[in-house]
Amino acid sequence: MPLLDETATGVFVIAVTPFTETGALDLESTDRMVDFYLEKGATGLTVLGMMGEAPKLTAEESALVVRRVLARVAGRVPVVVGVSAPGFAPMKELSDQVMQAGAAGVMVAPPSHLRTDDQIFSYFETAAEMLGSTPFVLQDFPQATSVQISPGVINRIVKACPTCVMLKHEDWPGLNKITAIRAASDRGDTRRISILCGNGGIFLTEELSRGADGAMTGFAYPEMMVDVCRAHQRGDHARAQDLFDAYLPLVRYELQPNLGLLIRKYTLAKRGVIASAALRKPAGRLSPQDIAETERLIARQEARLKALG
Amino acid sequence: MPLLDETATGVFVIAVTPFTETGALDLESTDRMVDFYLEKGATGLTVLGMMGEAPKLTAEESALVVRRVLARVAGRVPVVVGVSAPGFAPMKELSDQVMQAGAAGVMVAPPSHLRTDDQIFSYFETAAEMLGSTPFVLQDFPQATSVQISPGVINRIVKACPTCVMLKHEDWPGLNKITAIRAASDRGDTRRISILCGNGGIFLTEELSRGADGAMTGFAYPEMMVDVCRAHQRGDHARAQDLFDAYLPLVRYELQPNLGLLIRKYTLAKRGVIASAALRKPAGRLSPQDIAETERLIARQEARLKALG
Amino acid sequence: MPLLDETATGVFVIAVTPFTETGALDLESTDRMVDFYLEKGATGLTVLGMMGEAPKLTAEESALVVRRVLARVAGRVPVVVGVSAPGFAPMKELSDQVMQAGAAGVMVAPPSHLRTDDQIFSYFETAAEMLGSTPFVLQDFPQATSVQISPGVINRIVKACPTCVMLKHEDWPGLNKITAIRAASDRGDTRRISILCGNGGIFLTEELSRGADGAMTGFAYPEMMVDVCRAHQRGDHARAQDLFDAYLPLVRYELQPNLGLLIRKYTLAKRGVIASAALRKPAGRLSPQDIAETERLIARQEARLKALG
Amino acid sequence: MPLLDETATGVFVIAVTPFTETGALDLESTDRMVDFYLEKGATGLTVLGMMGEAPKLTAEESALVVRRVLARVAGRVPVVVGVSAPGFAPMKELSDQVMQAGAAGVMVAPPSHLRTDDQIFSYFETAAEMLGSTPFVLQDFPQATSVQISPGVINRIVKACPTCVMLKHEDWPGLNKITAIRAASDRGDTRRISILCGNGGIFLTEELSRGADGAMTGFAYPEMMVDVCRAHQRGDHARAQDLFDAYLPLVRYELQPNLGLLIRKYTLAKRGVIASAALRKPAGRLSPQDIAETERLIARQEARLKALG
Repeated sequence: MPLLDETATGVFVIAVTPFTETGALDLESTDRMVDFYLEKGATGLTVLGMMGEAPKLTAEESALVVRRVLARVAGRVPVVVGVSAPGFAPMKELSDQVMQAGAAGVMVAPPSHLRTDDQIFSYFETAAEMLGSTPFVLQDFPQATSVQISPGVINRIVKACPTCVMLKHEDWPGLNKITAIRAASDRGDTRRISILCGNGGIFLTEELSRGADGAMTGFAYPEMMVDVCRAHQRGDHARAQDLFDAYLPLVRYELQPNLGLLIRKYTLAKRGVIASAALRKPAGRLSPQDIAETERLIARQEARLKALG
Repeated sequence: MPLLDETATGVFVIAVTPFTETGALDLESTDRMVDFYLEKGATGLTVLGMMGEAPKLTAEESALVVRRVLARVAGRVPVVVGVSAPGFAPMKELSDQVMQAGAAGVMVAPPSHLRTDDQIFSYFETAAEMLGSTPFVLQDFPQATSVQISPGVINRIVKACPTCVMLKHEDWPGLNKITAIRAASDRGDTRRISILCGNGGIFLTEELSRGADGAMTGFAYPEMMVDVCRAHQRGDHARAQDLFDAYLPLVRYELQPNLGLLIRKYTLAKRGVIASAALRKPAGRLSPQDIAETERLIARQEARLKALG
Repeated sequence: MPLLDETATGVFVIAVTPFTETGALDLESTDRMVDFYLEKGATGLTVLGMMGEAPKLTAEESALVVRRVLARVAGRVPVVVGVSAPGFAPMKELSDQVMQAGAAGVMVAPPSHLRTDDQIFSYFETAAEMLGSTPFVLQDFPQATSVQISPGVINRIVKACPTCVMLKHEDWPGLNKITAIRAASDRGDTRRISILCGNGGIFLTEELSRGADGAMTGFAYPEMMVDVCRAHQRGDHARAQDLFDAYLPLVRYELQPNLGLLIRKYTLAKRGVIASAALRKPAGRLSPQDIAETERLIARQEARLKALG
Repeated sequence: MPLLDETATGVFVIAVTPFTETGALDLESTDRMVDFYLEKGATGLTVLGMMGEAPKLTAEESALVVRRVLARVAGRVPVVVGVSAPGFAPMKELSDQVMQAGAAGVMVAPPSHLRTDDQIFSYFETAAEMLGSTPFVLQDFPQATSVQISPGVINRIVKACPTCVMLKHEDWPGLNKITAIRAASDRGDTRRISILCGNGGIFLTEELSRGADGAMTGFAYPEMMVDVCRAHQRGDHARAQDLFDAYLPLVRYELQPNLGLLIRKYTLAKRGVIASAALRKPAGRLSPQDIAETERLIARQEARLKALG
């Protein structure tokens, strides 16, 4: 499998981890999910991310999920694996293991105690050194990590670490950060890396206009992101925006912290992708009202897409 | 002026504080803004809130703004004043001053160091005692305050403090919190208080369905909130949702932390409400791209509203 | 090996994890360390704690360290193993594994996103359910976890979970919390559990007076804690305080966040307990001034202990 | 009154704000407190600091306290006034007011949302611009503000802002930060500014050895800090450390967050300095055990000082 590099574009779907009602890994649903994402146009997959309930898996289960996904993907698209960990030894262990198994790269988010520019830079410099030749995605997600990384620090990391090939951008607000990073590479100050965006896609059209190469997020309708990216790429911005607007009410609803993953899995189960909407403990649950609202939003979304043609 | 009580409904607009380009108070724009909000159907106004740049005003300026707004409102709708402060003495001083001047009530957010249920309850119990007979709004906004208040604690406060007449609800996700609080008063466990919702209105239709009485937020198109609330009240949920959806792309865009207030003031200036979009220092500024995106969203919004009829 | 229960007293030393200069596990030093702690009077050991660099170990290394310590201890004192994890599945896996291998109990700290009383209670209720019959220590360390647990919530957990047999108390300030918890069991409201205290022992004499049963912390001179506890137990409070005061300057110095573990390992290496003072990456390093200050404090401490007799 | 400059040394006591039992300002105690601090050797005073309960005062009360202290000091030592505020307008208003009244300088802590190096630098650059020619103290207190300022950022601020004349250093651990800042000025990279240290003095001897010029903190025995600084200055490091060690048990006890100020005021009341130990609401209260422990520590401290001679 070719390694991840700076040319990556399109939609890398953040995969959920399917469980049975009793909390066991559901590997058949995992296969079906891979097929679903690829049919919908995913250009890559990301597993063991925050929305993949990675911290709830044992080390053995993590390895099992990765191997299963890789086997099913069978080289059709690159697979990125989240390897964030408080220490470098478990990070390196998992990284080496999954690269050996055929992953295209790994993703690293900073631990939440980092504050100053130098602390953040040093962390990624050391991580890159530990990971060796493995290409990595820098995950910039301050709402989850509490770590604020300035464009200047991202540029320093890109310069110092040739294996940093992608930014998973989900700072919020972060549109001007994309603009600043692209300006730096346009000026020739830094390498141009791939930028894929998160936050459920809620700023996707603006992000693409600012220079992002696509999305890396897990909204339960990956075809929204695929179609928006394609419309944008062929210059049909109005169509991109119309499509985006049609899905926006549900994108917004799915973006509720904690509740969001329940809604996403509910929708994926409803769509027949996974057998059960269950999260592994600790997990909340949807109320009847949550479900009714989700259903209503899906129904309206379908009507609107139909009207849109 | 009658005092705020549990029957308040509709839209209390969170007023911005207009400044001139050089950062001075712009009182003429303040008058125009009051007129604008009332013309659009506001049933109340809230001044000196977080989005009113309250902490940037001197004590004298705060008093001046409140008096100016009260004079212009001239009793047509109730005015709520934000009085949150780290200590009770300045809170009480400002509260007494504005109630004397004709405010209908005050709003109190918890200081960010509160954590346990008892700490939160005690804080509001003491605040209520200090405020005397002044009715107050409990502001529940964890994303800004870091304080998480469970429905049970809100109910304890409502029971213990007869002057707590309204919840400004902006927990996120918070829909099930509304449901839980309404269930408690439906069961007769607590008084039924008014619930007005924030977060720029981004969950407004769902919040109304869960039992909220309206909105208290500052989106630059208050007519959206007014029209959605009215459609909801007359039972026309489809119309409420259609209206909401038409404004949603801009609601979402305005919800960007820090940037959001710049966008809101830009829009209000564009609409002729305030003379300058300037924030007082410390303040960021909109980039050319931010402005272009805002303009594009407004243009699309207008087209869609026209199509909607 | 008997299981941990509510009668535990004395000093459970929080063990460091010895590494070689190149960051490999140093198992010979681990043996020597166990012998050292026991010779100094430890009544228990705690491994894989925060100060044991647990998150830096791979799953396999964690298991290896636990087995090595258990083999060397050979049943002479109970061994507690830190099993805190973001998800219950890895927590349960490690717990079952170490209990199988002969550990006396496990220790659980709450994940940092917990805020309300009910959230905290539910977390421990579910953790206890997952851990089955394994006795566990509730670690209350708000400075590290950001989770503030009121005495009332601790009492709820103790009532609901018979396997919660010990509190590792390191709230700061927390003396009145000990008093409140002891008052509850004195009144017969709750079971009396063991309370061992942390924070490097910096409040040890006061904690014992408030009703704590001893210490669970890792100061590089465990004989301080042992001797203070023994003096306290035989009612010689003046001697306990004199001893404490003699060590206090170094206790204080070792309590510097991040730097503290470097100082502790430096001291243990100087005392011949471990071969290398190295921490595994990510790790800071002591400056020449840090080392000079440590040496000076140790020299003064020895002189003062000699004078004390 | 001469303005504060880079040559300041010795002990600037962080003054408490004395209240009566009912929470009113106690201006007679304020006078007595000023006399007490000066008799004990203070080389400066700092009012309206965090430990001065500044946020609990109304704007008018703040002005009253400052004027009263300035009148009593009557130019004998410089008085610094805390002016930290979320907005620059109230900061500037208070600063101009107190400088007019005779203060020697002001103190500014960063607001807690600042994270990146550039955000912190810009904040102080703008603050300095707003404050005009008024000399200011940069308060570096991450435990209270959550803002981590690297030595490099402090150096940038010192270079860009000629009115930044002093660092109130209370990072913890922060000894190597003092070393780094002194190294920069020794190399000629920056102006040498005054460094006075906080945290109740718990690292005072080490801080002086690292190049600090003294202390700015409020321990209830300011003579400790004065005598330690004097002994250090005349090169008698053993005496400095002996004195420090004698007070350390109480320094440590007074350093408990929240509780600390209650203990400090209790001690000052016991020493006859202030009439009442009361804090203004919101405030906790000392338990009987807290008081007994404080009394015991004071008694032991006196015995030890006597033995020390």
